[in-house]
Amino acid sequence: MLKAKIFVQLKPSVLDPQGKAVTNSLSHLGYDNVVETRISKYIEISLDTRDLAAAQKQIDNICNSLLANPNTETYHFVIEEI
Amino acid sequence: MLKAKIFVQLKPSVLDPQGKAVTNSLSHLGYDNVVETRISKYIEISLDTRDLAAAQKQIDNICNSLLANPNTETYHFVIEEI
Repeated sequence: MLKAKIFVQLKPSVLDPQGKAVTNSLSHLGYDNVVETRISKYIEISLDTRDLAAAQKQIDNICNSLLANPNTETYHFVIEEI
Repeated sequence: MLKAKIFVQLKPSVLDPQGKAVTNSLSHLGYDNVVETRISKYIEISLDTRDLAAAQKQIDNICNSLLANPNTETYHFVIEEI
């Protein structure tokens, strides 16, 4: 079994309204040292395979075709044996 | 400046419908080795402070009061200098 740990994040140039809302909420709660909040997705996919090289390609394809929006997001991942 | 890297994840016992939907989509796309998908939030908060101990307490409070639902989610975080 392999587990892919995938981060899908907005590109730095893309506005993150959800993150901005959290920053504003924190300011209202009195946390005035918060400079920026960025909210991303963290996805774990368990794969029933032991072929690491094939899994790397598969997860890359999955990110491109389903998990990430190539216009606004970037992704990176690591794959571990479990 | 410090940056907190926060993971907010559903408790293992809680159903993740979004993750289930991704698993089903992947199955339809032909990826039949996908056992499970779990989707979580990954949040980065930049803090204008150099006091690591105070930042640890602050981020813990922020997670408890705003970012995580204590009924269904757990969280963990690391804080790094940037």
